[in-house]
Formats: sequence, C-alpha cells, structure tokens
Amino acid sequence: MNNDVLPESVNNLIEEFAKLPSIGPKTAERLVFYLLKSEDNVSLGEASLALKDGVVNCEICQNFSTDNVCKICSNANRSDDLICVVSQPLDIVAIEKTGLYKGKYHVLHGVISPVDGVGPEDLEIDSLIKRVEGSGIKEIILATNPNIEGETTALYILRKLKDEDIAITKLAHGLPMGGDLEYADQMTLGRALDNRQAF
Amino acid sequence: MNNDVLPESVNNLIEEFAKLPSIGPKTAERLVFYLLKSEDNVSLGEASLALKDGVVNCEICQNFSTDNVCKICSNANRSDDLICVVSQPLDIVAIEKTGLYKGKYHVLHGVISPVDGVGPEDLEIDSLIKRVEGSGIKEIILATNPNIEGETTALYILRKLKDEDIAITKLAHGLPMGGDLEYADQMTLGRALDNRQAF
Repeated sequence: MNNDVLPESVNNLIEEFAKLPSIGPKTAERLVFYLLKSEDNVSLGEASLALKDGVVNCEICQNFSTDNVCKICSNANRSDDLICVVSQPLDIVAIEKTGLYKGKYHVLHGVISPVDGVGPEDLEIDSLIKRVEGSGIKEIILATNPNIEGETTALYILRKLKDEDIAITKLAHGLPMGGDLEYADQMTLGRALDNRQAF
Repeated sequence: MNNDVLPESVNNLIEEFAKLPSIGPKTAERLVFYLLKSEDNVSLGEASLALKDGVVNCEICQNFSTDNVCKICSNANRSDDLICVVSQPLDIVAIEKTGLYKGKYHVLHGVISPVDGVGPEDLEIDSLIKRVEGSGIKEIILATNPNIEGETTALYILRKLKDEDIAITKLAHGLPMGGDLEYADQMTLGRALDNRQAF
C-alpha cells in the first residue's frame, strides 16, 4: 500500500529500518520521516557504510578492535591473571561502565544453543582454552547471561578447564540495587535468600 | 567510557542511532552490534544516503513525491472535490491503509504551536487557501490530531475558510474498534456518549 503513496527511496529506508531488531514497521516509518526533515540521514548513512572499516577481532580476546591486539589487551595497567568471559562485546561495554573491573576479557561471540544450531565449535571457546593453558592465569570469571544457554555455556567451559589450576567464578545473583523486594521475581528472590550475606 | 572499548566507527554509528527519536543509547548499541554481525549495514547506509534523492513536495498537496505532482493528485480515479487536510505525510499513509478514502489530500507539514515557535505562516496553510478559493471543492475534512495543537490548527483553518461555500468536517471521535469500554479514557467515552448513533 505504501508503494502508491511514498517515494521509493522513502520506502527503501523504511524497509531497512524494519529489518533491525525491536524496530517494527510503524517505528521504521516514524524514524524515516524524522530523517526526511533533518540532515542526519547523511551522517547516519556514512557511519553505517563505514561501520566495519578496519574492524577486526582482537587476536587475544576476540573483542572488536581496530588493531590486531585491542586496547584492553595491550593495556599494561590491567591485570593479566584475571579473565572475564562474556558472550558478546556489548557485555564488555556494560562491565567497563562500572569502572570496577581491572582484568582482561574473552569474548565467546555467542552461547551454546542447539535450537539455533550453535555448538561449542562455533564459539571462541577453543581460543579461550588455548589462551588459558599453562599461562599463569589465576582466575576466570564466567560472566555469561543467567539463562539456560548462558549457564550451559558456562558449564561447558567449566568442564573443559577442570584440570587447570585456576579459580573459576561467576557473577553474584541477588536483588538488583534500588529494586523493591515486592517486585523481584521468585527466582531472583530465591537466589538472594540462598546467597544471603553477613552484615 | 565507550571510546576506550569500542572501535571509533562503532561509536560513530551508535551516536547516529541515538540521535533518532525513541532510540536511547542502549537500543543504539544493540542495533549497531546487530549490524556488525550482519551485512545490512551496507544497504541501510545506501538507503539512508539516497533517502532524499529526487524527493520534492508535490506542488498541489505538498506531500513528499518524486514528481512535481504526486501520484495521488494526478490520479484521475480520485475525487477532486474532496480534500483531507493532515499535519504530516505519515497521516496519509495511515488513511490510505484503510482503503476507504477516495479524495485528495493536503499536507500542512506541522501544526500551529506557539511553544515551539510554529505559526500559521510556517505551515502549508496559504497554499491550502489558494488551492481551495474558487476551485469548486465541495468538502474539506480537517484531520489534524485530536490534541490542543491539532484542534487549534483546525480552528484557524476553519476561520480562514468560513466565507467559502464548502462543507468543513472532521473525523469522528468515539470508542476505538475492538476496544473495551472499561479501558476507554474519560474524554473518549464522553465523546462516544455525546456522539451516540441510532442503530
């Protein structure tokens, strides 16, 4: 129906936006009409085309990087004997925002998910094992998401590393800060009780 | 903080997305990481750059068009004596989707809003008056949004056209189809009562 009413270039961009996750056709229309009234379509277009220019995976941690070794891996002020394993680069952004982590990372680029046909061999697990073996790393934090796929992936890595002399930890579960007890879900509240701490 | 962790090209596109209405920094991150894993960044970039190629305002109705006169205005099967006045091109898309309207349109490209510094002279009101005067148009539907700015704009146009021999109408208000009485807001329910119809 749109095709009769809108110029083709407008329909094209609506279609492109609608391909993105969490953007439906209505939102796509609204975004495009916003861009029609602004000049931002040019900078968005250029940034979009340039997105992957020179972006590679860091050869150590597999995070996106513009150098062979990323800024975190080459940062001498960060501890080499602590590695935080995450499923995707966005998780690194979230952890870095806390400003509390001073170790290195390893990005798996996914989680084990038989339903989606993703096995351990599709992830950066081999590169993690190789990186860890005989390296003197003292602790590995398995920071995959607390859902079935994330925990399965963490358990798989745990088993692979069981013969290494390394502390393997995971993030604490409990009530979110600032959260109300009455709004916490059952699972979270249960974990918070199990893991209760001394004052 | 991002700047330390992500390649510049990735940060650039996150910033561009975050400029768009209804897209916050978190959503922007998620969209960009989706694009990093797909090939869609190229087609999105090209469509974005080409967005305004050859797009002009139709010289009759002011809707976006690739010709001087848009497809709706040049469509001989649509009635020339009925004009629906809308504030933006998206409203035309919505009305066309009903498949029930066979007249022409006029796009104001905004509404009167003193707070935002938008007066009648910033809108396509003069072009509407000129189009209407002595044209033989029989009815004008003022289909601006049912909020303060929309109604103010409609009233302004109504006053401008009061000397013309033209029926001026507006869209019906009432309960939305499929809507539950108990969930309707006061204003809507009040209008639905006022405008009650014989079975």
